[in-house]
Amino acid sequence: MKEFDTIAAIATNLGESGVSIIRVSGDKALSIVSSIFTGKSGRKLDDIKTYTMRYGHIINKGTGERLDEVIVSYMKGPRSFTAEDTLEINCHGGVVVTRRILEEVLKAGARHAEPGEFTKRAFLNGRIDLSQAEAVIDIINAKTELSIKSALEQSAGKISKEIMILRDKLLVNIANIEATVDYPEEDLEEVTAEKGRKEIENILEQIEKLLISADEGKILREGLNTVIVGKPNVGKSSILNALLMEKRAIVTDIPGTTRDVIEEYMNIDGIPVKVVDTAGIRETEDVVEKIGVEKSREKIRLADLIVLVLDISEELNNEDKEIIDFIKDKKYIVLLNKIDLDGKIDKDGIKELNPEYIIEISAKKGEGLDKFKKAVKELFFSGKVQVNDVIITNTRHKEALIRAKESLKAAKEVLNNTFAIDLASIDLRNAWKNLGEITGDTVEEDIIDKIFSKFCLGK
Amino acid sequence: MKEFDTIAAIATNLGESGVSIIRVSGDKALSIVSSIFTGKSGRKLDDIKTYTMRYGHIINKGTGERLDEVIVSYMKGPRSFTAEDTLEINCHGGVVVTRRILEEVLKAGARHAEPGEFTKRAFLNGRIDLSQAEAVIDIINAKTELSIKSALEQSAGKISKEIMILRDKLLVNIANIEATVDYPEEDLEEVTAEKGRKEIENILEQIEKLLISADEGKILREGLNTVIVGKPNVGKSSILNALLMEKRAIVTDIPGTTRDVIEEYMNIDGIPVKVVDTAGIRETEDVVEKIGVEKSREKIRLADLIVLVLDISEELNNEDKEIIDFIKDKKYIVLLNKIDLDGKIDKDGIKELNPEYIIEISAKKGEGLDKFKKAVKELFFSGKVQVNDVIITNTRHKEALIRAKESLKAAKEVLNNTFAIDLASIDLRNAWKNLGEITGDTVEEDIIDKIFSKFCLGK
Repeated sequence: MKEFDTIAAIATNLGESGVSIIRVSGDKALSIVSSIFTGKSGRKLDDIKTYTMRYGHIINKGTGERLDEVIVSYMKGPRSFTAEDTLEINCHGGVVVTRRILEEVLKAGARHAEPGEFTKRAFLNGRIDLSQAEAVIDIINAKTELSIKSALEQSAGKISKEIMILRDKLLVNIANIEATVDYPEEDLEEVTAEKGRKEIENILEQIEKLLISADEGKILREGLNTVIVGKPNVGKSSILNALLMEKRAIVTDIPGTTRDVIEEYMNIDGIPVKVVDTAGIRETEDVVEKIGVEKSREKIRLADLIVLVLDISEELNNEDKEIIDFIKDKKYIVLLNKIDLDGKIDKDGIKELNPEYIIEISAKKGEGLDKFKKAVKELFFSGKVQVNDVIITNTRHKEALIRAKESLKAAKEVLNNTFAIDLASIDLRNAWKNLGEITGDTVEEDIIDKIFSKFCLGK
Repeated sequence: MKEFDTIAAIATNLGESGVSIIRVSGDKALSIVSSIFTGKSGRKLDDIKTYTMRYGHIINKGTGERLDEVIVSYMKGPRSFTAEDTLEINCHGGVVVTRRILEEVLKAGARHAEPGEFTKRAFLNGRIDLSQAEAVIDIINAKTELSIKSALEQSAGKISKEIMILRDKLLVNIANIEATVDYPEEDLEEVTAEKGRKEIENILEQIEKLLISADEGKILREGLNTVIVGKPNVGKSSILNALLMEKRAIVTDIPGTTRDVIEEYMNIDGIPVKVVDTAGIRETEDVVEKIGVEKSREKIRLADLIVLVLDISEELNNEDKEIIDFIKDKKYIVLLNKIDLDGKIDKDGIKELNPEYIIEISAKKGEGLDKFKKAVKELFFSGKVQVNDVIITNTRHKEALIRAKESLKAAKEVLNNTFAIDLASIDLRNAWKNLGEITGDTVEEDIIDKIFSKFCLGK
């Protein structure tokens, strides 16, 4: 284990609540907290056992004044989150009281932890690898149970294991090639090349399989970015409400990284669907003018799926056509709303537009919504939403896999076209390195810093 | 201890953070959490010892699927916050993951706790009295270290002890009177009346002392409600910034009970000073018109202190005079800003207005701010800001004390004017009851419900 200084941070979300936790990790964690703690009859923490708690007060070291009533828990390294000695101070959940205790911990010798630094320590101390560390923040940010599940499996090392197997295979292959090069016999080279090609094929197949999971995986992790469009009064808001209010659709208001942004997520059988409502922008102003606005344009550009709402009781007009023209290159589903009214719309005309699905619904009566959900599942999860096998959710991992794939293809090319098989070993080493970026074995320090800087404080 | 069902709630502030805690309290707490927990090698919680923790996973009871990696801690009643068996599930601080675990706990048999219900249990189970319970939420809401200190002392039972002593004295007095009435002898009655009067005097004195502390106490608990007024460009914002930015003035942004309200507090030697800036309203619009606006009027009406800012380099004009006219009945301090410029203002004229203090400052250079702070301390804490003795911070307690005082005065009156001293015992019993409202011994159930409903969820 490496030697680090002792760090501390508030690990819970700060705000008026029942309980807050200040986490302290490092060699001096126990002595620091002990120096500002008084238990019953003045007892300190010197004799506290791992995985036990002690009731007492945090005191102002200078004046001896009590700052709060607390329960301190102790996890001795390496059996702790960071693999270092870790203490958690469980205090009253007030803003001032929590900050005051953190301040006292810092005065007693700890350093204020950077965002993600506790998890970074777990990684640097070798308790978890990089993909496991990344899973920690994915669990915290997860929008559905299924997202949690895939993050938990990643956190338990499922991806790491898969990657390690592939890397080991590559190493054997590289060793074979290099041994052959060192003791050159023409026949042997050909045999090695042939064997290498097969191995590479095999590894490429595995990588391909992982990459196939990445599209679904990205949605599980980040949510399906869905934008609802349509001219005023076609029922966008009613549809949104019907979808969000439905019993099985758990709605969560999740404050984003900035306090201002509130995103709405609905849950379609575990698929987190982020719903971006353009209604707010559209309703009040002229549609045609408005659709040109950069903000809507950008939202639609970034969307995984567009939901176009049309009023079945009216013929298509210019407003509708403007909108259709705007989204026609995206993946989109048409919802024909108001089936409780007489249909006047030209359905064949809409079919020609080639949307993924045309679904008749009544937001008012809640009819047809299940068909919409089924369509989403079919479109993005081939109908079945589940987490089996290993699933790649992280774009960083996907990119590393793509690089590995390119390197392996290059290696294959070499083995196909030349007898200088040692040239292939360079590409194979690259692939080995590319895969190592996922587990963090071969990753640059600035990438590591970047990853952890996206974590929240106290994790 | 009474028999209650088992309750559960999220005890931390929900939001993306390192850690969340789900608290479970009641007879079935251990069996409920154990039924959805798997430790290493499938270990349950059956043999967990009090004040220890165990690492494992919370599982979906139906499917056995893992919901999150957790650490469960156990505090066996009565040595817990609620005096009941209490478990805390320490999980990843995500919104969905935390809610999902709470859901699983509820499915396993717990009931969702109401706001304040854990503390209410501590009270109903007799672990703490009502004033101690009220101190819990005061610690959480505390705005300065001094506020925390007074709340902590209340939480430790300092007020309760004082009240109990007074109530005991009253009981002795009542017993004396009633004994005398039962065995009437004229001389004895007179002696008892004389003795009673003295005792009542003594108790009244103590209550008076407590009541004197209540003004300072209220400020410690709720903050000194300060409104800064002045016409545009006199430097209100600069003064506010200078006050908030000063090294010793800790600034905290505390989200109120509704998410929209952000109040700014500054800390003057432990006095929480809530600063209401009317600048935002005033700057953009006509002062004279604006000052009539209900919002400003209301703010000023509720203020403990008005800070009027005048520009020393200009003569008083009508705008200033309008404002002065508006605040003249309140406690106010005049800040003469811009002393770095030539003084043109008529200082004698201002003196005649009779403000509490006139202080010359330069917000720009940071001069004179200390004088302002000193003035605040002198005005509200007779110069010395400290928490010694018992201090009444809660308006409910203050009102009960006032009622007790009235009852005691009535008793004294009776003893002074009649020989039917048993009439006094009715008033003394009332006083005894009034004081019992503070500790919760004689309080109505709906008052109790009201008190705890103001708590946050999970406390």
